[in-house]
Amino acid sequence: MIIHLDPGDLPASWYNVVPDLLELALPPPMSSSGYPLGNNDLSSVATSSIIKQELEREKKDISIPGPVLDLYSEWRPTPMYRAERWEKILDTPARIYYKYEGNSASGSHQMNTALAQAYYASQEKPVKRIVTATGDGDWGISLAIACNYFNIRCTVFMVRSGYDEKESGRFMMEVLGAEVIPSPSERTLAGKKKLAQAPDSPGSLGIALSEAFEDASTRDDTKFSWGTVMNHVLLHQTIIGQEARLQLKNAGVKPDIIICAVGGGSGFGGLVFPLYRNRSAGTRIIAVETAACPSLSKGRYAYDYGDAEGLSPLLKMYTLGHSFVPPGISAGGMRYHGISPLISALYREKRIEARSYSQKRAFEAAVMFARAEGLIPSPESSYAVAAVIDEANACKEKKERKNILFLLDASGNLEFTTYREYIRDGVEEHPFHEDQVAAALEKLPEVRQS
Amino acid sequence: MIIHLDPGDLPASWYNVVPDLLELALPPPMSSSGYPLGNNDLSSVATSSIIKQELEREKKDISIPGPVLDLYSEWRPTPMYRAERWEKILDTPARIYYKYEGNSASGSHQMNTALAQAYYASQEKPVKRIVTATGDGDWGISLAIACNYFNIRCTVFMVRSGYDEKESGRFMMEVLGAEVIPSPSERTLAGKKKLAQAPDSPGSLGIALSEAFEDASTRDDTKFSWGTVMNHVLLHQTIIGQEARLQLKNAGVKPDIIICAVGGGSGFGGLVFPLYRNRSAGTRIIAVETAACPSLSKGRYAYDYGDAEGLSPLLKMYTLGHSFVPPGISAGGMRYHGISPLISALYREKRIEARSYSQKRAFEAAVMFARAEGLIPSPESSYAVAAVIDEANACKEKKERKNILFLLDASGNLEFTTYREYIRDGVEEHPFHEDQVAAALEKLPEVRQS
Repeated sequence: MIIHLDPGDLPASWYNVVPDLLELALPPPMSSSGYPLGNNDLSSVATSSIIKQELEREKKDISIPGPVLDLYSEWRPTPMYRAERWEKILDTPARIYYKYEGNSASGSHQMNTALAQAYYASQEKPVKRIVTATGDGDWGISLAIACNYFNIRCTVFMVRSGYDEKESGRFMMEVLGAEVIPSPSERTLAGKKKLAQAPDSPGSLGIALSEAFEDASTRDDTKFSWGTVMNHVLLHQTIIGQEARLQLKNAGVKPDIIICAVGGGSGFGGLVFPLYRNRSAGTRIIAVETAACPSLSKGRYAYDYGDAEGLSPLLKMYTLGHSFVPPGISAGGMRYHGISPLISALYREKRIEARSYSQKRAFEAAVMFARAEGLIPSPESSYAVAAVIDEANACKEKKERKNILFLLDASGNLEFTTYREYIRDGVEEHPFHEDQVAAALEKLPEVRQS
Repeated sequence: MIIHLDPGDLPASWYNVVPDLLELALPPPMSSSGYPLGNNDLSSVATSSIIKQELEREKKDISIPGPVLDLYSEWRPTPMYRAERWEKILDTPARIYYKYEGNSASGSHQMNTALAQAYYASQEKPVKRIVTATGDGDWGISLAIACNYFNIRCTVFMVRSGYDEKESGRFMMEVLGAEVIPSPSERTLAGKKKLAQAPDSPGSLGIALSEAFEDASTRDDTKFSWGTVMNHVLLHQTIIGQEARLQLKNAGVKPDIIICAVGGGSGFGGLVFPLYRNRSAGTRIIAVETAACPSLSKGRYAYDYGDAEGLSPLLKMYTLGHSFVPPGISAGGMRYHGISPLISALYREKRIEARSYSQKRAFEAAVMFARAEGLIPSPESSYAVAAVIDEANACKEKKERKNILFLLDASGNLEFTTYREYIRDGVEEHPFHEDQVAAALEKLPEVRQS
């Protein structure tokens, strides 16, 4: 059953959660020199609009620029569904709702921030080019589409292993006209350094981020684009939760349990923040991680870099260490050592729960969901689907009719190689590498606040 | 720019064009014994509801069953867009509109008929299973999803070459729980016969259809499912054109040129039929074929079988001969020797035009469109996109501000292997095999009407 939202009810502003979280004493981002991050620290890599949004601590409602809102309206408001077929199969008294972001041009929620970032770049001279890093290409596809809309060139450093194996992402970006460079590359000092150490390096998201960051900071016409983790990215995603809030209201539903997968946290922040403010007492919010890279569940709350080489700002977050290279699970968006500082702060103060599942459990859940609902979940959202099953089963045991809401952040239709592995070859399990994480945590930067 | 249609305006019936085309003296389908097709000829392979719809020559409005309408409403009405960004790049005075069917669960318009067919199967005892044939899996994915919704088992005979090469289709069907059998197989007499002749046969859609047809006709619990060509399939697709008619009306637009790719004709019939009735004088309607398999442009208007072995009914249509095996172009949906009898009759009477493009032209057009609009076209609809470019350029030359409407029948996101070929390897051209077609036309069945 679909829960519509009238096109006229498309929210016209993003919701900045920061003012409502100041009570948590949010630790500010720091420059590597130990000062709270300011305009100057970011100006070589980000546009002034993005920097302003990143550091905004007062204004709650940030207007969405007209051209971005027009593009949003090409597929938004996105549908919310009640999963009645799946409820029946699960034989649960729970009512399961999900917000579906798979109908954007890229098939993913990442269009929400890609459009905003490309628009701001198009408004700032002399910017003509955006550079970013991607693991399996999902983020790069969204950014490539958005850059085309605003006549901005797009370069994507793609982790070498993804470039070689995740052909869907690579070739879709190339169809869309983006320049795709396997990382590590000879294009940057960071890449050259890595290649000198390991000529056959499969790369990592950390290294690709370093390369993209270096590229942006050394060229006047180029800005770097973050796909997750940063406050401004989560801000742009709050369009999801604002729509969800209106849809739940129209349907007369109060969610008892809100479930979302977390990689860097952009989908989670997007869904949860607008619902957090007005949540009922007793509403549970669950962040679901992969057991192979459980930043919240097993990480340390500390200042750490976002990239491997330490070129990015220092963020206070739950981290497994910026030098930790997560195992090659299929959900590329979950292979990141840290979690958004805003979500980390919520977890630190026990406002949200965290839970992790193995890749196998996530796949099994995704296949069950796909057969019931017809939509194939992205590998990332499959982890949320696994958690929903557990909660629905708990409702069955306790005979409780709770309302469960979760985010289906993207279509999994591009991910057939992933599902092929599950169907044909069985899923390789990647246990938590405790020793590697311990070693990475030893290498956290020392931050002496000036 | 999106042209919405209110959910409350979702049409509640399909439009049967047959009564409005009786003036064309539609030749009836025939059984192989030379009599006009009746209930009994189809009852072993189709449900009674489907047979009734296939043979309906009086009733224009066929009610959509409630459960099917409920499922339609999960993603319908589908959006219509004005392609303003693309118009600008084409620098044309023409206004280009397209109806987009890529937001269904399968990403394709084929859900429209799959749902209806699975529903009718679920209503008829002792039917528990549907069997079909697919080339690259697109049709099979839609049918697998629909069967899950109605608790019907789904078996798909998949052309061996597609089974081996188009992994996206195969594994997505398997994720969805369908049984996928490479054809030719040992499961049927038709398959065994082919394997005896050619153990390494790559198969063809004609053979896979024969296998599926034989499977259905020999089992009481099983019905065959057509994905295109037949009247009832086109009927179910008229939901597209009915919505388009309302959207054009809301936007105050009269189309001057309507363009649609044709393989078997289900997308074409779906878009065009509801617009045909009330078209303005001078409205041009263009069916776009692949130059590798140009059934309308180069075929013969004759009774022919739908499958390779001659198990299916005889249809009067433009055909290249049921024994013609089209070359391996990427657009699997365009690799069929015939065209819907209804569309064939319209072409015979010069009510519509036909035109063909090479695979290379189609790809170039698709990439241009994708970079402008952000949506990657299915390989099938890419041929329509090529024709739109030509018409938009003609408008530019003549300084005419015409309204062009075309159908984007499916998302091309599952088709990255196709685009990879274009980007990395260049496109192999498949010229029209005149000698092979001439040989196949020699083998048309002799139909002596009793």
